[in-house]
Amino acid sequence: MSTIVNRRDLDFLMYETLQLDSLLETDRYNDYDREAVTAILDLAQSIAEDKFQPFAGFLDENEPQFVDGKVEIIPQVKEAIDAYKEAGLFLTGYDADLGGMQLPWMVHQALNGVFVTANTSVSNYAFLTQGVANMLHACGSDELKQKYLPKLVEGEWFGTMCLSEPQAGSSLADIRTKAERREDGSYKITGTKMWISGGDHEMTDNIIHMVLAKVPGGPEGVKGISLFLVPKHQVGDDGAIGESNKIALAGLNHKMGHRGTTNCLLNFGESGETVGYLVGEENQGLTNMFHMMNEARIGVGMAATVIGLGGYLYSLDYARNRPQGRHLANKDPKTPMVMISEHADVKRMLMTQKVYVEGAHALMLYSAKLLDEQKLATTEQDKMRASLLLELLTPICKSWPSEFCLEANKLAIQILGGYGYTREYPVERYYRDNRLNHIHEGTHAIHGLDILGRKVRMADGAALKALVQEINADIARANKHAELGWYGERLTAAMAKVDETLAAVSMAKDMSLALANATTFLDAMGHVVIAWMWLKQATAASNGQQQGAAHDADFYAGKLAACKFFYKYELPKAMAKFDLVAELDDTFYSVEASQFTGQ
Amino acid sequence: MSTIVNRRDLDFLMYETLQLDSLLETDRYNDYDREAVTAILDLAQSIAEDKFQPFAGFLDENEPQFVDGKVEIIPQVKEAIDAYKEAGLFLTGYDADLGGMQLPWMVHQALNGVFVTANTSVSNYAFLTQGVANMLHACGSDELKQKYLPKLVEGEWFGTMCLSEPQAGSSLADIRTKAERREDGSYKITGTKMWISGGDHEMTDNIIHMVLAKVPGGPEGVKGISLFLVPKHQVGDDGAIGESNKIALAGLNHKMGHRGTTNCLLNFGESGETVGYLVGEENQGLTNMFHMMNEARIGVGMAATVIGLGGYLYSLDYARNRPQGRHLANKDPKTPMVMISEHADVKRMLMTQKVYVEGAHALMLYSAKLLDEQKLATTEQDKMRASLLLELLTPICKSWPSEFCLEANKLAIQILGGYGYTREYPVERYYRDNRLNHIHEGTHAIHGLDILGRKVRMADGAALKALVQEINADIARANKHAELGWYGERLTAAMAKVDETLAAVSMAKDMSLALANATTFLDAMGHVVIAWMWLKQATAASNGQQQGAAHDADFYAGKLAACKFFYKYELPKAMAKFDLVAELDDTFYSVEASQFTGQ
Repeated sequence: MSTIVNRRDLDFLMYETLQLDSLLETDRYNDYDREAVTAILDLAQSIAEDKFQPFAGFLDENEPQFVDGKVEIIPQVKEAIDAYKEAGLFLTGYDADLGGMQLPWMVHQALNGVFVTANTSVSNYAFLTQGVANMLHACGSDELKQKYLPKLVEGEWFGTMCLSEPQAGSSLADIRTKAERREDGSYKITGTKMWISGGDHEMTDNIIHMVLAKVPGGPEGVKGISLFLVPKHQVGDDGAIGESNKIALAGLNHKMGHRGTTNCLLNFGESGETVGYLVGEENQGLTNMFHMMNEARIGVGMAATVIGLGGYLYSLDYARNRPQGRHLANKDPKTPMVMISEHADVKRMLMTQKVYVEGAHALMLYSAKLLDEQKLATTEQDKMRASLLLELLTPICKSWPSEFCLEANKLAIQILGGYGYTREYPVERYYRDNRLNHIHEGTHAIHGLDILGRKVRMADGAALKALVQEINADIARANKHAELGWYGERLTAAMAKVDETLAAVSMAKDMSLALANATTFLDAMGHVVIAWMWLKQATAASNGQQQGAAHDADFYAGKLAACKFFYKYELPKAMAKFDLVAELDDTFYSVEASQFTGQ
Repeated sequence: MSTIVNRRDLDFLMYETLQLDSLLETDRYNDYDREAVTAILDLAQSIAEDKFQPFAGFLDENEPQFVDGKVEIIPQVKEAIDAYKEAGLFLTGYDADLGGMQLPWMVHQALNGVFVTANTSVSNYAFLTQGVANMLHACGSDELKQKYLPKLVEGEWFGTMCLSEPQAGSSLADIRTKAERREDGSYKITGTKMWISGGDHEMTDNIIHMVLAKVPGGPEGVKGISLFLVPKHQVGDDGAIGESNKIALAGLNHKMGHRGTTNCLLNFGESGETVGYLVGEENQGLTNMFHMMNEARIGVGMAATVIGLGGYLYSLDYARNRPQGRHLANKDPKTPMVMISEHADVKRMLMTQKVYVEGAHALMLYSAKLLDEQKLATTEQDKMRASLLLELLTPICKSWPSEFCLEANKLAIQILGGYGYTREYPVERYYRDNRLNHIHEGTHAIHGLDILGRKVRMADGAALKALVQEINADIARANKHAELGWYGERLTAAMAKVDETLAAVSMAKDMSLALANATTFLDAMGHVVIAWMWLKQATAASNGQQQGAAHDADFYAGKLAACKFFYKYELPKAMAKFDLVAELDDTFYSVEASQFTGQ
């Protein structure tokens, strides 16, 4: 059994639940059929298992070192990425006009997920590079694209995102990095950037930084932010690597997890002139950066999900093979021990992991499909519908797996007991790696404000209306199976609760108070959306039971049990949370900082 | 502000909430008054801050090494313990007849907690030793006590507990370590013990292991387990250290947290004869071990609590001093940034930490007081009442802080954002250290079975009845403050729900199914007990508002807000959980291992 991917489940999600086959019939994607997608996933899985997974623990114990001003990384990292590159996998997400494979984004995400589970720290280098290439492609000038894009697309050079500064993390309005116009139209960049993943290393000849900075004299706050491409080394017009661009590595951050990904403090323009090139227009930096943010945030959600998956699969395999104790009713110590998967609480922990991980996985792939549908839309209305749904779901995609698939990782450790708490087993590393996902690409709190303060009201509530339509259509589909009727009723009741909650929030006089419980709303709304994903899966499983192969009987029974578990054990948690949001509770909002300890 | 202890709160809990002063008036403890207790806590805090806290991060990064068959530990560890020893702090928990300080157990626990927060890994060595000394004192022969006890009490030699084996963690019935009688009445010990904290090192001249083993020919299962004292080095009748007792260090475990505490795999009797000495009677090993288990388990709960406290205090201090962003209603980027403690979601995370940590702290000190009351009881009835309450509460003491103070640590990281995720700040270490507490001293699941399967029915339900009496008496006290009436009502309703749940469980025909949701019950029952602790604190705070000093106004207001928060945001979570337990839900119980992935 693979401990990084459950291919049966991935097929179930992509084809039976989310109709990937219909995407493959479109002109855009008809280079691929199911067989071709399977072959690509086979290839990805084999490279991930052979080249990425084996040294994930070793890399965690041997993190990059800062030696003589340079970053030293164990050679396996480059070897793994080389194998990924040589297999052409850097190209899965790009369109054909960029030299890419033009796979459906759903498949691209599924495939990337396999590498995250296998070795999160290594996968970061590749996915950051893909993000930078997509951003440059969307917003850059032809000149910049010509010079930098092919190298990024092929994975010859890696890319980074430089947003945060020591004094400005969530508050981008307060960044201080300066970009001053030079005579030739380029800019002189000065300032310090913090938390730069992949910020420096010697694995590629060049590193392309996407840097947020302010042009002096521009508007205050976020309206004065511009986006710049800043290479580690200058690049000549012939594409040859030139002089150093004077970006000084000021230090490495040492994280709890993601230890194999260099994370840097970088000084621009401190030891000489650093030159940057404007991407898009001046003062449009945030818009350009956010251009790719939905993809990036679904990527984070997918990472959180599949790190959860790694723990789930590993602990399931362990539970089925570790003998310990006997059934409760059996007091005879002479009888053999049973596998711990026989113990009720271990089943509870496995089931909880399953509903979190497979529920989140469905949402990530569904959202990736919305990105595909945006591209495929032939009418403005279809495109708008996909865009609105995606905008509304993005904060949940980013946040729900960060919270609940981390919880899944906690349970995986528990199933392994003392062993799970040691670095000889991967589950504690998953737990450490996954803890980052609440923090980067917008904190949990920021996504709460985004969904409750903005997204649910966006376009006069059209996004929420589109969501309700989708959910109702799925309830109607589910209702063809009599045994699923109860779930549809619960989901309808939950959506009614969402309505009531939002009505109460919209009536609030004090918007700051109304948004005080935004994080609580985010978590609760996430539970409703995941309940919807489980209804989709239950419907597909019921269809499968009627039409599918007999050897899938256990698989479908497990899916239906999981749906039941989510509706009985998880969905009720959301209801009490909506009540708190709706009543505009001010219990913590009105507390002064001095009251926490009285000092 | 100290980041390891809030002395104002400790005083509030000990004196205003739990009436430590009444303990100090008894003959047993009247060597101490409040001033003396304060002085001892001052001393402990100063040693913890000066000698333990400064190198906690360094120790975490420089864990013990296995070199040439020996354990190398950085010298600061011994220096810290020497300072603790020289201050006489090894003696705080022992009675005067042992040469101890005979402090109330409540004070002893409070004081130990300060060292756990400061440097968990170092504190483990001392507290394990105290546990072994207490066990030997309670169960050992005069001969053994004379030879080993003084050295343990003084902290000259350290002690360990050797229960688990590679194939037997939770299932002690299946241990294989053998103890064969020798002619002189001692035993030859052979076998392998796993997860031995403090199992080997060179910091003391000797290490005294308490080892569970089976005498061949004895009963099967747990009824055939005996307890042995097994020294690392033989000890002559004159007390001099003799030859090696042939306990081989087979390896060190490398944990996610507690990295500064050596954790060993030990082989007994592999490289020569290992001699052990029976403690108590043959086949009474488990009973003897459990003799001290309530203390040990409250100790684990206290550790989980104060590690949570460390994160709470650190993140509170950070939040009050880190500027970032502006109030939601303020869109002007030219205005100065505010401290993040002004942001609603940061307040929510601080308040959540506060209710978890200070609620758990109250329970730990309350339970420690029950240990004191056992000792002070002048009637069999009083003693029985304290014992029953303690037995009932012990699984909650062990488990609730492990779950919820870990959650507090997760939130502390979030408040520090990217910084919190790095090893340059202590909060990620707290999160790693605290994850152990679900696992050792009985897993979360085992305590669930203990409380629902045994403790609530114990002595014909007398323990539960005693608890109800205690809670009702506190509700009556609270009701003297009109504004606390609502909490009493909520708590009464929660206790009624507990009753209903237990009635439903007791009617079950299939006890295994009835206990399937035992962990869910444990968590929910814990919430009810912590709600009770918050009502106690709210009552004390209301009294304080009427009678206390004006400079405490913020402190008391914070306590009352926290009580409200717990009742509004936390207690409702328990209600849905009781429903699941009461309906004997079989959703996961009936799932087969093959259904999780269909393979």
